[in-house]
Amino acid sequence: MTDTVLAVLNQPSRSAAPHDPEADAFTWAKPLEEHIQVMDLGLTRGDGVFETITVIDGRPQALEAHLGRFVRSAAKLDLPEPDIDAWRRAIEAVCARLDPVREAYAKTVLTRGVEGLGRPTGWVYAAPSADQTRDRTEGIGVVTLDRGYRHDVERTSPWLLQGAKTLSYAVNMAALREAVRRGADDALFVSTDGYVLEGTRANLIMSVGGRFVTPRTDIGILDGTTQADVFRFAEQEGIETAYELVTLDDLRAADAMWLVSSIRQAAPIHTVNGVRQEMDLGMTERINDFLLARQD
Amino acid sequence: MTDTVLAVLNQPSRSAAPHDPEADAFTWAKPLEEHIQVMDLGLTRGDGVFETITVIDGRPQALEAHLGRFVRSAAKLDLPEPDIDAWRRAIEAVCARLDPVREAYAKTVLTRGVEGLGRPTGWVYAAPSADQTRDRTEGIGVVTLDRGYRHDVERTSPWLLQGAKTLSYAVNMAALREAVRRGADDALFVSTDGYVLEGTRANLIMSVGGRFVTPRTDIGILDGTTQADVFRFAEQEGIETAYELVTLDDLRAADAMWLVSSIRQAAPIHTVNGVRQEMDLGMTERINDFLLARQD
Repeated sequence: MTDTVLAVLNQPSRSAAPHDPEADAFTWAKPLEEHIQVMDLGLTRGDGVFETITVIDGRPQALEAHLGRFVRSAAKLDLPEPDIDAWRRAIEAVCARLDPVREAYAKTVLTRGVEGLGRPTGWVYAAPSADQTRDRTEGIGVVTLDRGYRHDVERTSPWLLQGAKTLSYAVNMAALREAVRRGADDALFVSTDGYVLEGTRANLIMSVGGRFVTPRTDIGILDGTTQADVFRFAEQEGIETAYELVTLDDLRAADAMWLVSSIRQAAPIHTVNGVRQEMDLGMTERINDFLLARQD
Repeated sequence: MTDTVLAVLNQPSRSAAPHDPEADAFTWAKPLEEHIQVMDLGLTRGDGVFETITVIDGRPQALEAHLGRFVRSAAKLDLPEPDIDAWRRAIEAVCARLDPVREAYAKTVLTRGVEGLGRPTGWVYAAPSADQTRDRTEGIGVVTLDRGYRHDVERTSPWLLQGAKTLSYAVNMAALREAVRRGADDALFVSTDGYVLEGTRANLIMSVGGRFVTPRTDIGILDGTTQADVFRFAEQEGIETAYELVTLDDLRAADAMWLVSSIRQAAPIHTVNGVRQEMDLGMTERINDFLLARQD
């Protein structure tokens, strides 16, 4: 066992030629050595997709939801369809090999591969998660930032790849730096026509009049695996849930809100653009207890 | 000498710790081996910048213009400033080591480095260019595609990184695939408010009433090194040049137009959205002769 683990897939997509026809589904590799060529299109063009999966006590959470989104993201990029059985086996093996820690994560990456070879590159990397206690218990401040797109670009202009979880995340990281420059912890993207979209690496959930509301997922944002499970929790608790178009006015009127994602889980929002926001820490604790106890 | 060459920079940014304090500015590496870790942010987040430089008979073209843009792109991403002297030395050494071919290219890449290490990764890769004769002499068809942004986002929303040459090029590659699906060779991006922007990896130049016109470079597009040199050619020939806001109507009214970029140089456009477009093949040849004869 080791504290970081890396498995390189031999044939990440069934339709592509395997790296080694004799090899198993994946090969163990040393995480801190070099495994990628400089002309891999994942690197030169951000041309690939990924998932980040929470691993609790060695158990990957929301695995099938992550695998489903991985396949949908790949399809949006016209990548050869990931061989889900091979990926599932690799993820489970990586999680089993990881040092026993309470919270870790597994990152799956599929790229278009080295330019000219026509063979995708794929791997699963896992490591312990940084401590998330502070974000979960004290909350986070967010600022709203223009995403530059209308809320309907996913439908009108699919080549903009909104709704796909791609390796081209430079804008997300720049927005995160801008949020920090403004004294916040994260950014919440807003469409040019005034709809609240998503965080830089998380979904928004609001509590409004006893209901849980999240932005509709057909407006160029990711369908969140953690968000879906928070809604599962809510339904189990008798809390009504809804996917809606959310405006900045709606945001101001919310009783409580969270950014939810893998690794961090539910982080209550204490400030929006410098304005204090009520937090529901009791509910936050129940949500995180639910999320951390997921068995699948 | 060899047909592909790779130099890995020891200290791509002066402010960052070198990989090896005893080493030279760069280290020769085998281009077809693995040199990048899976947790390099250039790979996991498309978080880095690049340049592609034409190399004619072993001589890098528009080198200072490329280096200047490389530095400006890095600044837009808050990357530690590239050590231009080290990069220049590495590029010149790589070009000198390349097998003697008429046309090659050198690609410089600077990434934020392996997550958590705080040390950027940088390299120069060079290889012979594919034959560009057909695009240069027979021309290319383009389709116009929505870029999803207004023409002023570079000013209003700098975190969208428009105008920076980043590794997050998945949208450019998806637009290129969409163009091919529509029977064209390349796409020309248009802003949501109707201004023609740039190609997926090239700038547009139009010949209009004896003048050369290119879209203004403050509207979220790259300032093209090849475009600048075509304007240098034009001025030398007594042809007036202008940077303007260009609409689709202006495009339809052009006498001739080109997509210009490193490697391909000037490719005349024979079709826009399926409508035939007059080409000026004599002028195209003179432009490409000028570009391929550049001494710096």
